[in-house]
Amino acid sequence: MITSPSNQRIKNVIQLVNRGRARREQNCYIVEGIRMFREAPREQIREIYMTNRLCEKESLSDCFSWGIPCELVSEEVFARISDTKTPQGILCVMERPAYDLDTYLAKQNGLWIVLENLQDPGNLGTIFRTGEAAGVTGIIMNSTTVDIFNPKSIRSTMGSVYRVPFFIVPELKDVFEKFQANEITSYAADLKAEISYDKQDYSRGTAFLIGNEGNGLTKETAALATKYLRIPMEGQVESLNAAMACGILIYEAHRQRGVTEWF
Amino acid sequence: MITSPSNQRIKNVIQLVNRGRARREQNCYIVEGIRMFREAPREQIREIYMTNRLCEKESLSDCFSWGIPCELVSEEVFARISDTKTPQGILCVMERPAYDLDTYLAKQNGLWIVLENLQDPGNLGTIFRTGEAAGVTGIIMNSTTVDIFNPKSIRSTMGSVYRVPFFIVPELKDVFEKFQANEITSYAADLKAEISYDKQDYSRGTAFLIGNEGNGLTKETAALATKYLRIPMEGQVESLNAAMACGILIYEAHRQRGVTEWF
Repeated sequence: MITSPSNQRIKNVIQLVNRGRARREQNCYIVEGIRMFREAPREQIREIYMTNRLCEKESLSDCFSWGIPCELVSEEVFARISDTKTPQGILCVMERPAYDLDTYLAKQNGLWIVLENLQDPGNLGTIFRTGEAAGVTGIIMNSTTVDIFNPKSIRSTMGSVYRVPFFIVPELKDVFEKFQANEITSYAADLKAEISYDKQDYSRGTAFLIGNEGNGLTKETAALATKYLRIPMEGQVESLNAAMACGILIYEAHRQRGVTEWF
Repeated sequence: MITSPSNQRIKNVIQLVNRGRARREQNCYIVEGIRMFREAPREQIREIYMTNRLCEKESLSDCFSWGIPCELVSEEVFARISDTKTPQGILCVMERPAYDLDTYLAKQNGLWIVLENLQDPGNLGTIFRTGEAAGVTGIIMNSTTVDIFNPKSIRSTMGSVYRVPFFIVPELKDVFEKFQANEITSYAADLKAEISYDKQDYSRGTAFLIGNEGNGLTKETAALATKYLRIPMEGQVESLNAAMACGILIYEAHRQRGVTEWF
């Protein structure tokens, strides 16, 4: 059992929790809590740290035979590596998944979310969660969007980060060329647009562009969209929360597609 | 100009910012920032506090002739009363509005949100913001829902708290009797429900019930609903964020009603 917070591996985990740069350099991210542990794809788990209390409570001694580095740590040490106020007692270092964009773009009638400069980690996580629920093919983000591997983003995904393919690209404009080549229509929300979001047909390849919480899409990116739409708003509301706007759009696409048989 | 944080009125404002009980006892709430100030209904403003810097920058000297107590405070004092890290320099004590539930329930084909035990102030604020945008008639909350007058909730409403009628009730069950009397159909989201949310007709009086983030609706409240519906979810998602579920439902109602003429 590791009982010292100055243990080399513990020091590294603390770095990984706190520093985006360390996570990037080591090509990993951190997940915490029993639910995130249970849903984690086993082949992506690099290291497991847990308290004895949780190991017994959840009958986890099995993990020690998985061939994955797995360590018991004292409650005190766990409190140091945890990012939460009331730690559950389990944390994993995860390998970052790598998805090939071209492969996913080639899928028939894909449903895509494109995020530009999103800043709120909670919003980003909620978009992943809602995106999985609406059956999106993938989420594309530019590199100045908030870090999906930020512990707060990860937590808000409620596990969807494991299952929704995502792509971080240096330049969104390259993506639009690929959209065109794959017959994917891109839609930008615009207050001045004439067409309401529910008057479009999303049954074929579709991508929704969502911009920064305060400023929306940049002019440059908005100009690359195939079509413009608006979400009608009553009262004096000038805009919806970014995750909410995204959810309403992808659920309208999901509704039109009738992906699953519902009664 | 008030330059001392031990000024009696400043001490009271600090209490109002930090304590729900003090706000309740004085039947008021606090709003902060230039946008919340500009959108505030003037007849509800009880006191205004601002820094000289902001007063000049935004040309606010006009306020001093409104017949509302209006005070300049030093930057140091403002930092003490502010709830934000980078204060803009204006804060108001607001009178709580009082709406008559029976009057609003009598409106033809009302669109209602009912919240039970919601706990996240950001979610509550987002529901107000999205609710205004979707044209809801009002929002009903039980008294164990998080305080709408919490500074974080207020901030997330983006001003909708001024414009969406809302009602805090001790017992939700009394509301259901009134729904029946006013021919308002109530819908509870339920994972086991057979009917998808988009296969219902929301053109007449409609109320959507939204429960706690972790636990959903209590059995008692769910049992009072007229109908049950589900929001179809792909992948392994077990539930949507509470504000997101609410937004998808009210926007489906808004879409069906075609409240405004859109092209």
